[in-house]
Amino acid sequence: MVKDLSHLLSEESKGRQPSPLKSAFKYYGKEDIVFLGGGLPLADYFPWEKIVAYSPEPPFEDGIGAQPSVTGKATVSELHKHKVEEFDIPLARSLQYGHTQGNPELVDFLKEHTKMVHNVPYDEWDLCLTIGNTQSWEACIRSFCNPGDSILIEEYTFPSAVETARNLGVNFVPIRMDAFGIIPSALAELLEQRKELYELACKYDFVIIEDEPYYFLQMTEYESGKEEEIKTPSHEEFLKSLVKSFISMDTEGRVLRLDSFSKVLAPGTRVGWIVGQSALLERFVRLHEVSIQAPSGFSQSIVQALLGRWGQSGYVDWLIALRKEYSIKRDFTIRCLEKYMPKEVVSWTPPIAGMFFTIVLDASKHPDFATKYDSDPLKVEDAVYEHGLKDGCLMIPGSWFVAPNRKNTPGNTFFYRGTYAAVPLDTLGVGLERFAKAVKSEFGL
Amino acid sequence: MVKDLSHLLSEESKGRQPSPLKSAFKYYGKEDIVFLGGGLPLADYFPWEKIVAYSPEPPFEDGIGAQPSVTGKATVSELHKHKVEEFDIPLARSLQYGHTQGNPELVDFLKEHTKMVHNVPYDEWDLCLTIGNTQSWEACIRSFCNPGDSILIEEYTFPSAVETARNLGVNFVPIRMDAFGIIPSALAELLEQRKELYELACKYDFVIIEDEPYYFLQMTEYESGKEEEIKTPSHEEFLKSLVKSFISMDTEGRVLRLDSFSKVLAPGTRVGWIVGQSALLERFVRLHEVSIQAPSGFSQSIVQALLGRWGQSGYVDWLIALRKEYSIKRDFTIRCLEKYMPKEVVSWTPPIAGMFFTIVLDASKHPDFATKYDSDPLKVEDAVYEHGLKDGCLMIPGSWFVAPNRKNTPGNTFFYRGTYAAVPLDTLGVGLERFAKAVKSEFGL
Repeated sequence: MVKDLSHLLSEESKGRQPSPLKSAFKYYGKEDIVFLGGGLPLADYFPWEKIVAYSPEPPFEDGIGAQPSVTGKATVSELHKHKVEEFDIPLARSLQYGHTQGNPELVDFLKEHTKMVHNVPYDEWDLCLTIGNTQSWEACIRSFCNPGDSILIEEYTFPSAVETARNLGVNFVPIRMDAFGIIPSALAELLEQRKELYELACKYDFVIIEDEPYYFLQMTEYESGKEEEIKTPSHEEFLKSLVKSFISMDTEGRVLRLDSFSKVLAPGTRVGWIVGQSALLERFVRLHEVSIQAPSGFSQSIVQALLGRWGQSGYVDWLIALRKEYSIKRDFTIRCLEKYMPKEVVSWTPPIAGMFFTIVLDASKHPDFATKYDSDPLKVEDAVYEHGLKDGCLMIPGSWFVAPNRKNTPGNTFFYRGTYAAVPLDTLGVGLERFAKAVKSEFGL
Repeated sequence: MVKDLSHLLSEESKGRQPSPLKSAFKYYGKEDIVFLGGGLPLADYFPWEKIVAYSPEPPFEDGIGAQPSVTGKATVSELHKHKVEEFDIPLARSLQYGHTQGNPELVDFLKEHTKMVHNVPYDEWDLCLTIGNTQSWEACIRSFCNPGDSILIEEYTFPSAVETARNLGVNFVPIRMDAFGIIPSALAELLEQRKELYELACKYDFVIIEDEPYYFLQMTEYESGKEEEIKTPSHEEFLKSLVKSFISMDTEGRVLRLDSFSKVLAPGTRVGWIVGQSALLERFVRLHEVSIQAPSGFSQSIVQALLGRWGQSGYVDWLIALRKEYSIKRDFTIRCLEKYMPKEVVSWTPPIAGMFFTIVLDASKHPDFATKYDSDPLKVEDAVYEHGLKDGCLMIPGSWFVAPNRKNTPGNTFFYRGTYAAVPLDTLGVGLERFAKAVKSEFGL
């Protein structure tokens, strides 16, 4: 039963009125009305008559990095000012004002996709496009937090997300996570955590912001010593294998799910979307009317042209192929760690999702820990970071992810976060060997 | 002499820190560093290999609405993942994270354009891309206004701009304007107003937000009875004819100029830019890092591909041709008003800039003013609006533009704002005839 949660909105969001001009806009494009209402330039004056985009073609047997000019198999999106394909967003519309929520063709595609993947357990949900999850998150903070309000965050978290909220007078309350929190290591455990948290949200009446751009980068668990070829699952197997999202268990309509094309198509699309109960999403549309208006029309037209041609099925093919690439890179990373890292100092848990891995170091194993580093593990963390940089590999110190107000825990371990996303395999291997060398050298091994 | 204006920043803006992760980003792309720092997907996995856009070709002798497929003269922008033309933004970069301020090729083009048009009278200025002027304005409010701060606004203003600020605890102080303020009617007068206001800003230490997306739609003054062909000025004549902007007289660095492609290329590009002193613009970059990140990479690449191929000179050709189209429409509008409107009730001043015109009505000429309408001009305004809609023409009632806290002035006049932008000439004529009919019918003429 969807709850009325309007009492949780911020003062800023509660009071926002639609612009009176918007009430006139319902007459725009009506055949019997000459619309002299708003400063909408004629589409005749948009200096783009046609845009053609060349993309790979499902089912991507040659991998998602294979270029159509090499394989000869291309999805060609030909976009015109006026509508040609039923599923296309014509440039005359996407490059015009309007459709703050997003053009209906793309919104509909994403709704169908959301139904298929998350099966939202209530009817009154809606979907609104954004400029990506950073902006979605900013909109959430501004929509739900008055100065003095508190947000619960993981004790290790994305520093930019903290920075968004820090100056708005919000209190941060970090929650303890296991296994350094930021890298899930077992699906079953993750699901249990989620169920528990959702129950708490219902009991204590808070909203959950589910910021999950990496959702489709879930892999099978890593098996040491196995170097078999990664299997391509069927669509059904793939969808079934995904961990249940918060929104999929959201019977009360108190989850806002933030999704994005940044990790699965390209960050520069600057297209994300929020899924949640309609009454709350209406407030986001009001905010967007007086801020971003809508994502780029080029982005909407070009992305939807591709998705329309691929279809839901082709898009799932893409996601499966993408997951395969990241699985290969994850497996390669772990094998490199096994090969290069000194196990007496470094440990790790193979990740099952996302673009990142962590390595945990024990500072007390450093011969000069008590002397040179005053028994402060963060000083060792910094020294190894700098040494890594000098040797030519950058990994991010774990302390950079510490949430505000987190209490220090006794212990001598610290960690680094690395990614297997940003470089090709061979470079990844070189980098990990370099970082291992830096660790060994620092620890006198 | 540029002043330090950091004391005018809001608390939210003052305290904003760069994300620590950004400090690692300076190592991204360095040859001797393997970057395992951030979740940047490989460009190999962006499913767009090539994008080709077809646009009209300068100097646009056939008008800006002429399609290249008809004229045979096209500017063809071929964009690849990796750089081909020196001035292009390759897709591998524009579709990646980074460049919050905007990709350098587009930023540089716009800086050169700004120098040519505004000749900013100090050196320490910079330029930052935005998602268009609505978002720029929102960013300005959030960057300069604490709750309880006041902004001076024109007594008739854009309601969406008010709505952006309304719920942030800002006070509105309307300033009286002549000739209904919103439509400039004489260049010399406008310039005098601007000089005076700039002096006040220096004296009383406030910033001026110059929100001027219509800047290039400045026309020569309308001459009644003359139906000569509109001349195409030289670039020099054109640039010299433009009214001086606030930023062009900004010796102290207290103007933030908001510009946009929305009115001159297309609203759906969702690309605008702010020009102002570097120290203030740095704060906007920090805000964008934790909100919009940057405008769409498709938009940046496609717009810059066009501007790069046109060059500064071709872009000025476009602006001149655009102005010509709007001059034709403005002239046509005024001739329609002269032809259709009952002069005993309706008056107007031909606009010299923008997409809009106003007609002023005298409610006291209505035979039932004192009886049916209780001597309230706004009731007549509403009746004519509804009558216009019924007859098939929409113009916006002037009362919709009234700024908050504006004191009512005695008098029986009211106005409507119309645009000649949104429809082609023949439809415009039909609409104005319909609205005139509605006025006559309401006033019993």
